[in-house]
Amino acid sequence: MNASAANPLLAYCLDVARRADGASAELAIVDTATKNRWLSRSAELLDESVEEIVAANRKDLELAPSYGLTPAAIDRLRIDRERLTAISNAMRDIARLPDPVGEVLDGYKRPNGLEITKVRVPLGVVFFIYESRPNVTADAAAICIKSGNAVILRGGKEAIHSSSAIVKCLQNAASQTGIPRDAVQFVETTDRDAVGLFLGLDKFIDVTIPRGGESLIRRVAAEATMPVIKHFDGNCHVYVEKSADLEMALDIIENSKCQRMGVCNALESLLVHEEVATKFLPMLRDRLASHKIELRGCEASRLILPEMVPATEEDWGREYLGPVLSVKIISNTLSAIEHINHYSSHHTDAIITNDLIASRAFTQAVDSAAVVVNASTRFNDGGEFGFGAEIGISTDKFHARGPCGLRELTSYKYVVQGNGQIRK
Amino acid sequence: MNASAANPLLAYCLDVARRADGASAELAIVDTATKNRWLSRSAELLDESVEEIVAANRKDLELAPSYGLTPAAIDRLRIDRERLTAISNAMRDIARLPDPVGEVLDGYKRPNGLEITKVRVPLGVVFFIYESRPNVTADAAAICIKSGNAVILRGGKEAIHSSSAIVKCLQNAASQTGIPRDAVQFVETTDRDAVGLFLGLDKFIDVTIPRGGESLIRRVAAEATMPVIKHFDGNCHVYVEKSADLEMALDIIENSKCQRMGVCNALESLLVHEEVATKFLPMLRDRLASHKIELRGCEASRLILPEMVPATEEDWGREYLGPVLSVKIISNTLSAIEHINHYSSHHTDAIITNDLIASRAFTQAVDSAAVVVNASTRFNDGGEFGFGAEIGISTDKFHARGPCGLRELTSYKYVVQGNGQIRK
Repeated sequence: MNASAANPLLAYCLDVARRADGASAELAIVDTATKNRWLSRSAELLDESVEEIVAANRKDLELAPSYGLTPAAIDRLRIDRERLTAISNAMRDIARLPDPVGEVLDGYKRPNGLEITKVRVPLGVVFFIYESRPNVTADAAAICIKSGNAVILRGGKEAIHSSSAIVKCLQNAASQTGIPRDAVQFVETTDRDAVGLFLGLDKFIDVTIPRGGESLIRRVAAEATMPVIKHFDGNCHVYVEKSADLEMALDIIENSKCQRMGVCNALESLLVHEEVATKFLPMLRDRLASHKIELRGCEASRLILPEMVPATEEDWGREYLGPVLSVKIISNTLSAIEHINHYSSHHTDAIITNDLIASRAFTQAVDSAAVVVNASTRFNDGGEFGFGAEIGISTDKFHARGPCGLRELTSYKYVVQGNGQIRK
Repeated sequence: MNASAANPLLAYCLDVARRADGASAELAIVDTATKNRWLSRSAELLDESVEEIVAANRKDLELAPSYGLTPAAIDRLRIDRERLTAISNAMRDIARLPDPVGEVLDGYKRPNGLEITKVRVPLGVVFFIYESRPNVTADAAAICIKSGNAVILRGGKEAIHSSSAIVKCLQNAASQTGIPRDAVQFVETTDRDAVGLFLGLDKFIDVTIPRGGESLIRRVAAEATMPVIKHFDGNCHVYVEKSADLEMALDIIENSKCQRMGVCNALESLLVHEEVATKFLPMLRDRLASHKIELRGCEASRLILPEMVPATEEDWGREYLGPVLSVKIISNTLSAIEHINHYSSHHTDAIITNDLIASRAFTQAVDSAAVVVNASTRFNDGGEFGFGAEIGISTDKFHARGPCGLRELTSYKYVVQGNGQIRK
């Protein structure tokens, strides 16, 4: 650690991480009412600071073209009074959610009289790396603090002035409500090397959550010395089984593919049972026509819809995030399961069926975070699952899988109560 | 992966990992009765193969001196009829444990009618690296298969003949009972480079569990591309609060320190409230005298027992795993909590008290896998917690903390059932 004297950036990162670590020990035992007061007060201060925040946001907006942001990205960056109200109301919503900390997960008495309870506790310090959307700054801080974790926020440089103004409100609210001010740390430097330095500080940081493109997540996973909650791509499938209600299948496919194309729970690959393909594929073409979806079909499916682009092996593993859908004819449910377990990114996969055996086989054997029967893939989402808040959707199987809300940012400990028991 | 052609060892590791991965998909949906039949049949085959196994064990025993094993280690390596019966009975015990796979962890209905269940599923493939104790081979395989995971067993070279003979029984039992034979993989090579190669195969291996010395665990944690369940040291504390029943404190300290000194849940550091120190420390000295424990005291404690060795700063962080105990006088419970949270390895820490406020403060604020009130630290153990079986004790906070039994080797998935719901 003597390297820090010679390296001001490392000294800065160490200081931020140490402060967060120190705050996390205090925060772990802060009661729910105090955390909720912080959330409410933060919301108030955000509302009251609309002018400062909009002014800071204006600086980011002025710099945005120099970062090469697209008009859509610039729009997502913009904060006005209405959007700020949405941000502060989201904090109020999180205040209303149950506190995961202290939840008793299990409890029992041993034959020797020992009483054992398994109690939910915070993880400690979360290092959160995210894209340039200032609303995420408030949202992530709220989720971390409510679950008892200190947070180090590393946002995109494109939103640094907006995020910094928001964080100032959150930190002031902390000082006013009994939450350690150091519990919300914002990385003020835009130096890219800072990320690498934080990733080496597993002594102080308990988990890293990177949100952004695949290359960022891969880099973080490779460099991090602490656990990482990863959010990779979603190559999501819908399988139309032969007993499916075909109108329902069309509704679900249209919704899964077209409601929002650029998201991880959008449909990318369609499997159709061979017994219904001849009837269904023309219906599908007509339903998707207005959405201008390019269909890429397997050989068998192109005998039915020759106008489809031939799908290549590579298509089955692709997450298009756009107006393309691969289509494959499948001879039975077992083949559909095998295809999905092989090509899916294990995010969200759905079956449309009226057959109980097929439905049971699918939900049991498909190894994905969410396995859906007769509903849109778009439902794999913390909000839709009723979590109230979400910091990401994990594609890992370890620790947290699927939507990550408050509970997914916790660990547990065993409390063992006795009256003098010793081990024989 | 073309490297495998030029590297026979990599080709071997890839083959082992691919087979395990293939088997894990089958194993994930095998029913409980089949897994239990495999456990019972394995136990029978072990019993029936006593002569082959003892003969294989004899080869290991003959080679043991050339590996520099101590007489104690050689004794742990030895298998006779009685010890083999203990091994096979342990497998029968695991057959009687509840199957974690399929357990519904949560379930609810959303306002739109979607029914969501959170269901326990296996992790997939476990890479288990362990010391040279042949009984662990059978035990680890039993825990992994019962929890629906395929396992790659990498045991110490000192037990390779014994372990190999045991694995043959387990694999034959698999073929006879409908468990994929490839679900139990045994690394036949003793080449140390194999471990490094397996640690790069995160495509096929879902978690690595290293058991052994700290340097092995650090190496695995640094090299592994997949998650690791780590089992670091236990610097365990007992804090004698001023209201403690001092006789109870002596019993608990003697048991925590002396019942088995070389284990991770043994006591290493004692904190004594200043108000009871003058009375208690001489009692402690007398109680521990017959065990020949070296006491290393802080300055204040040496005013009471001058014969104690002076403790240095380094002593507070040490895991002695032997007949040494550090002793520190503490002025209040808050200081005890701070000392423990600073120096403890967060494994097991206990308070002896009759004061409710002190007890509550301690259990809430001490951040350790097991926080114990008025009982021995030695109870932090899967068997003592009633898990029935244990593959290790995690010192991580992520995924699994404390004893790891069947449930700690699982993940979960969400099953979402609808009747045509689409997202608005």
